[in-house]
Amino acid sequence: MLSPTSETTSWPTHEVSPLDKATLAKLDAWWRAANYLSVGQIYLLDNPLLRQPLTRDHIKPRLLGHWGTTPGLNFIYAHLNRVIQERSLNTIYITGPGHGGPGMVANAYLDGTYSEVYSNIEQNENGVRKLFRQFSFPGGIPSHASPELPGSIHEGGELGYALSHAYGAAFDNPNLLVAAVVGDGEAETGPLATSWHSNKFVNPLEDGVVLPILHLNGYKIANPTLLARIPESELLDLMRGYGHTPYIVSGGFDGEDPALVHARMAETLDQVLNQIAQIKADAAAGTLEGRPAWPMIILRTPKGWTCPKEIDGKPAEDSWRSHQVPLADARDTPAHTKVLNDWLLSYRPEELFTEEGAPVELATALAPEGDLRMSANPHANGGILRKPLKLRDFRDYAVDVPSPGATITEATRQLGVWLTDVIRDNPTNFRIFGPDETASNRLAPPVYDATDKQWNAEYIPSDEHLARAGRVMEMLSEHQCQGWLEGYLLTGRHGLFTSYEAFIHIVDSMFNQHAKWLKVTREIPWRKPISSLNYLLSSHVWRQDHNGTSHQDPGFIDHVVNKKADVVRVYLPFDTNTLLSTYDHCLRSVDYVNVVVAGKQPTANWLTMDQAVEHCTRGLGLLEWAGTETAGQEPDVVLAAAGDVPTLEVLAAASLLRQYVPSLKVRVVNVVDLMRLQSEGEHPHGLSDREYDAIFTADKPVIFAYHGYPWLIHRLTYRRHGHDKMHVRGYKEEGTTTTPFDMVMLNDLDRFHLVIDVLDRVPGLAAREAGLRQDMQDARLDARAYTRSHGEDHPDVAGWTWGSAAAGATPTARFDDTGNDN
Amino acid sequence: MLSPTSETTSWPTHEVSPLDKATLAKLDAWWRAANYLSVGQIYLLDNPLLRQPLTRDHIKPRLLGHWGTTPGLNFIYAHLNRVIQERSLNTIYITGPGHGGPGMVANAYLDGTYSEVYSNIEQNENGVRKLFRQFSFPGGIPSHASPELPGSIHEGGELGYALSHAYGAAFDNPNLLVAAVVGDGEAETGPLATSWHSNKFVNPLEDGVVLPILHLNGYKIANPTLLARIPESELLDLMRGYGHTPYIVSGGFDGEDPALVHARMAETLDQVLNQIAQIKADAAAGTLEGRPAWPMIILRTPKGWTCPKEIDGKPAEDSWRSHQVPLADARDTPAHTKVLNDWLLSYRPEELFTEEGAPVELATALAPEGDLRMSANPHANGGILRKPLKLRDFRDYAVDVPSPGATITEATRQLGVWLTDVIRDNPTNFRIFGPDETASNRLAPPVYDATDKQWNAEYIPSDEHLARAGRVMEMLSEHQCQGWLEGYLLTGRHGLFTSYEAFIHIVDSMFNQHAKWLKVTREIPWRKPISSLNYLLSSHVWRQDHNGTSHQDPGFIDHVVNKKADVVRVYLPFDTNTLLSTYDHCLRSVDYVNVVVAGKQPTANWLTMDQAVEHCTRGLGLLEWAGTETAGQEPDVVLAAAGDVPTLEVLAAASLLRQYVPSLKVRVVNVVDLMRLQSEGEHPHGLSDREYDAIFTADKPVIFAYHGYPWLIHRLTYRRHGHDKMHVRGYKEEGTTTTPFDMVMLNDLDRFHLVIDVLDRVPGLAAREAGLRQDMQDARLDARAYTRSHGEDHPDVAGWTWGSAAAGATPTARFDDTGNDN
Repeated sequence: MLSPTSETTSWPTHEVSPLDKATLAKLDAWWRAANYLSVGQIYLLDNPLLRQPLTRDHIKPRLLGHWGTTPGLNFIYAHLNRVIQERSLNTIYITGPGHGGPGMVANAYLDGTYSEVYSNIEQNENGVRKLFRQFSFPGGIPSHASPELPGSIHEGGELGYALSHAYGAAFDNPNLLVAAVVGDGEAETGPLATSWHSNKFVNPLEDGVVLPILHLNGYKIANPTLLARIPESELLDLMRGYGHTPYIVSGGFDGEDPALVHARMAETLDQVLNQIAQIKADAAAGTLEGRPAWPMIILRTPKGWTCPKEIDGKPAEDSWRSHQVPLADARDTPAHTKVLNDWLLSYRPEELFTEEGAPVELATALAPEGDLRMSANPHANGGILRKPLKLRDFRDYAVDVPSPGATITEATRQLGVWLTDVIRDNPTNFRIFGPDETASNRLAPPVYDATDKQWNAEYIPSDEHLARAGRVMEMLSEHQCQGWLEGYLLTGRHGLFTSYEAFIHIVDSMFNQHAKWLKVTREIPWRKPISSLNYLLSSHVWRQDHNGTSHQDPGFIDHVVNKKADVVRVYLPFDTNTLLSTYDHCLRSVDYVNVVVAGKQPTANWLTMDQAVEHCTRGLGLLEWAGTETAGQEPDVVLAAAGDVPTLEVLAAASLLRQYVPSLKVRVVNVVDLMRLQSEGEHPHGLSDREYDAIFTADKPVIFAYHGYPWLIHRLTYRRHGHDKMHVRGYKEEGTTTTPFDMVMLNDLDRFHLVIDVLDRVPGLAAREAGLRQDMQDARLDARAYTRSHGEDHPDVAGWTWGSAAAGATPTARFDDTGNDN
Repeated sequence: MLSPTSETTSWPTHEVSPLDKATLAKLDAWWRAANYLSVGQIYLLDNPLLRQPLTRDHIKPRLLGHWGTTPGLNFIYAHLNRVIQERSLNTIYITGPGHGGPGMVANAYLDGTYSEVYSNIEQNENGVRKLFRQFSFPGGIPSHASPELPGSIHEGGELGYALSHAYGAAFDNPNLLVAAVVGDGEAETGPLATSWHSNKFVNPLEDGVVLPILHLNGYKIANPTLLARIPESELLDLMRGYGHTPYIVSGGFDGEDPALVHARMAETLDQVLNQIAQIKADAAAGTLEGRPAWPMIILRTPKGWTCPKEIDGKPAEDSWRSHQVPLADARDTPAHTKVLNDWLLSYRPEELFTEEGAPVELATALAPEGDLRMSANPHANGGILRKPLKLRDFRDYAVDVPSPGATITEATRQLGVWLTDVIRDNPTNFRIFGPDETASNRLAPPVYDATDKQWNAEYIPSDEHLARAGRVMEMLSEHQCQGWLEGYLLTGRHGLFTSYEAFIHIVDSMFNQHAKWLKVTREIPWRKPISSLNYLLSSHVWRQDHNGTSHQDPGFIDHVVNKKADVVRVYLPFDTNTLLSTYDHCLRSVDYVNVVVAGKQPTANWLTMDQAVEHCTRGLGLLEWAGTETAGQEPDVVLAAAGDVPTLEVLAAASLLRQYVPSLKVRVVNVVDLMRLQSEGEHPHGLSDREYDAIFTADKPVIFAYHGYPWLIHRLTYRRHGHDKMHVRGYKEEGTTTTPFDMVMLNDLDRFHLVIDVLDRVPGLAAREAGLRQDMQDARLDARAYTRSHGEDHPDVAGWTWGSAAAGATPTARFDDTGNDN
């Protein structure tokens, strides 16, 4: 049972009565106007109000955009306007169907927002002309509910995320209604199919309400949709099985008078909102038991509703043929020009626009006031509402590092300690999302001191750390986590997504779309910056030895750096203090995607907090204590590393070289901010060539031990001086092993091999140190033999840290206890 | 209604009677033995049959693997064995839960397959010792149902694809039962959530049967599962909503005698198989109406069933604590060593193994004969069953190319013509998969001459190209398409997946797993090669001008080339004949992932079929007719291209240079097989340096117009001579436009800019040709202005082909009709 809190909601109940004529007229006028404006955008270059018969010159040469889903979107929009007016409901609209752009632009124009945001699109005939012309036109706007569209937080170019975004928007917005239209094409995608289960996470008191509206218009591009072709009883079972109370509104088929459908929809929407109001009231009163069966609406209308029934004798309305542009040759086939002319006139534009060409009062009568307009709702421009996080000084959470490597901690666990206070200080606008891995990645247990996992499914007494409200959101779906977080950020809040490194590829495509959204919004002045999308990828490739090749993939970084440089950041903190410093930076930033890869295993700490802050501020730098260079002289070789395990191996290699080739001048470099490697012309974080040369030298061999696929380092540095002297070791997809050191050996990233690399690349050294080279090869064989006989790494190797002897191998007497009983 | 065909199935009906004691004893013995062998694999180094009390030295130092799901998997396996024996059912087993490895190894050992495949793992005590030791041990086998496991086609390291793989295996295997265990963790993923809908595609007569078994053990890593925490009525609604007849088997809780659960499971399984038999019989008789509600089983048992009820006073069995290794310190905590000892003894190993250590007859009595054993079923080693496709000579499908650029066709449409005959000649082992894009990508309509889209949901009279059985599989889920195709290939058949280029990133992670599977199987001698996984990515980045940035992403190629070189191939055929030649090669190949990116729009044909075959055989080559070099001399500059649109622009640039700088020696190169660019040491297709230099020269400027992100060309060629003279133009994420030429201009890949690149990079040329350079800049501005005023590309630009004047721009009189009314 839920307890009421001080923040109670305002969800009025209204009497359900038949639709009165005046309201019907307003609904009908809005809908006709929106449909007219939608068709106009798709087809018309000129003659926007059809004040003369349509001719070829009035029609765009390239007909783009999608009609099929549009009349349904407009219909729903009109009806939501009515209830927003009547109930003062704070509402945003999620347009799931892919190409709903023209409809949503039309609605934003009708409620006035569009002209407010784009002052050149005035409320007159010239404004309508420009509105039409710009749609899917060079220099204009795209065909989706793109960032350019006021009121949108969901572009929908790629399908499947409407409900995840909707729920993300609803969390911690107890007074917000998120009306989410799900297309029946989209409903076939995997992410959408599981996102219905989001309702098991919603807290009825402290979160907002998502109203899913499954719009069955029956067709995709060239096929019927599955959910339109199962018995209605099965569809109702499915929705009940998803935990909803389904309501069906069906109509408009075979020429049915839309007025009848308006009446049905209005009555159903009142019932639905009353049910929501009752749930909210029960939650506020503390009388709600368990999880409510939230309502959802199944709206079944013809595809392309109100377009010509037939074109050239073939069905258009209520057919897949109306999915895109039903009259593809309207310009060049006079008969089709006439059909288009009559189709536009069927909306009776002469009744809908004034002499000047502004929408008449009746057509916009349903527009709510000010910010209650769905196109103007500030939740859909979250940067307006965003408040920076209250962040305590992360330096107070430093781990003690009396000397390099002297202490061992789990980096993510200590980050969890700091995040615990982030949660305490930001109880309603910060959440952690993850696919059942918050504990596995060690942020928990610490964060459970301050919060729990939000869970509104069933409980049993032995459950731990689950609660009706909590800051941690866990569902075994990376899609869902990503979608929720995106929705949460886009509505002005903060968060992070923690996952296994290999499986974050599951959301590659979602990352693409979000990065593209951010890139475009940076160029739209009225879109305010939102919090960055922060990844914390732990259980990374070098610690997946035991789970094998299926759990090993460091390629998300490669995927990310394909996107625009001003949007993406990649960080590889290599110990606890550098992770704390990095994450503080990420949680303060806006409009980026920050990818942070950090280990969860007990690992040596290398930098004090002061050193870490300085190092992270630079993004890369020398680990002077590990090198053997002489001040003022260039080193003989640079050992560079990015990532925690590569840095450990580089340090161990430096230690071996220090012991066995003391005359060699070795520089040790660590890179935390990967983007620093790029040229300054390619990325805002890029080093100048002078700065780069000061660190990596212009012509000395560089052995670079890298966390991921080695190519990326070459890609980032191929324009640098001395790139032909750069030798990169990284992950090679070599297959399976089951101990950490065997894993690095399998990929030639281990300390012994790095020493060999140095010997082979510093001129003359391999010949001079042939004995050491052989010793290093023997050490590798011995280390491997030990794992094969003992099932774990040799303790000298696994236990090595800075200052211990010989980096785990004494060339003269190695691994005395190696068995050979395998 | 279905009609019977000659290929009728053999699905016997059996009387449902209570489980007899003898069979119960066999079930119980198998289950105990499998559980014992599973626990042994996780924990034991030695003392495999517990013939002495367990000590520290008998226990592995690193305890890996997962116990939680294992007893349930073993339970189901034993019961399936019973019905396979009784009904001679041809059955394979899909292990959905992530870490079911130890159980599946145990079952394969018990039925004898494991020792047949791995002769060193004998059926005696020494064999059991090796079996235990190798599991998750250095040099041993991984913890999942990996390729090393006989009987597996589904590793399950990444969750969500069990049902998609199962249905893929069942298509065109009318006598095959695919038992697919779905974990309740996995069930939360998006791909799994939508894969239930696969049943709307199954043809009851011509396809096999998938029996989903949803195994509810209630917990994930650290959380309860959603489907275990909704009311049973809701879960039943959900399964009915998915179109199934659900059967529930629940038991084993609070110490319930497993014998009772065996009885329940046996009875239910008989009922389920009888329902299946009835459906099959009705289908064969032609009396089946519509889509049957195929049965599925919900099996609810405790997580970690039969492990200690409590450890240190905290629940182990029936808790998330038994998910992984319940006694993590069994080695070093003597009390826990004792708990492990007693747990192992609870299975009474003394009854289960002979003196020599072989399983006793009772324990293996349920093993079916020969290939009927699920671990030995040839469908799970599909290469055994694979028959090469019958492919007609693709050269007979050539388009006529009297001179370069003289004809225009849609490449994918002509491929569709050839595929139509592939379908005709291979009616039961070749399918095309796509997310509603077979028509959009233009393979259809041609292929509909030979087949239809398979659809077993509801029909209405106006439906076109839908049929109860067909070779085209369309559902709006890339996950589903990929998973179906993988299952189809892994069981020895052939196919291709056609999708939009941008949205193929949706299956990045699935591609990873399949590529890793292929890589590993190449090293397993008993795994026979399977057909390659062929992508056809059309609607590519350069033709998504109208859909905008959300539909533009060429990065799948980058993602793919991170995988092992011996598994991945990338082809960019640039006209119809090269596409035909490329795809013939792909459909003949085995054990690769072939990524083919090809346009669907009407495009000029450049090569005759003879030329195309020669060009594709080389993978790259000179377009000699387009260049202006002198035989025997090196050119001044190389214009290279990969991809259809880049090649068009390069040819147009070459044409401009030919006209305006006739003295410049230009070489024109096209690359179809991208892997040819790599060094021969890095990829089997890689050119030698000598071959590379012969084409690209060692030191001349190379302007490379590339289909995707430009970095990849640098990555592939950075070790080549003259790489510092390589300048790459590609996709830059620059945002939205709405005409094709504007799109290439936005990314500086257009002919005019390529000419500028040449002028700027050939020493002295820019200064000498300053007028031409300015003309080219003006031409770009004019071309853009034209699109802004007219809404489409200038006809001289859009209509240019080889041999037409001046590549769409005459520097002295360009675009006279440019308007400026925007």
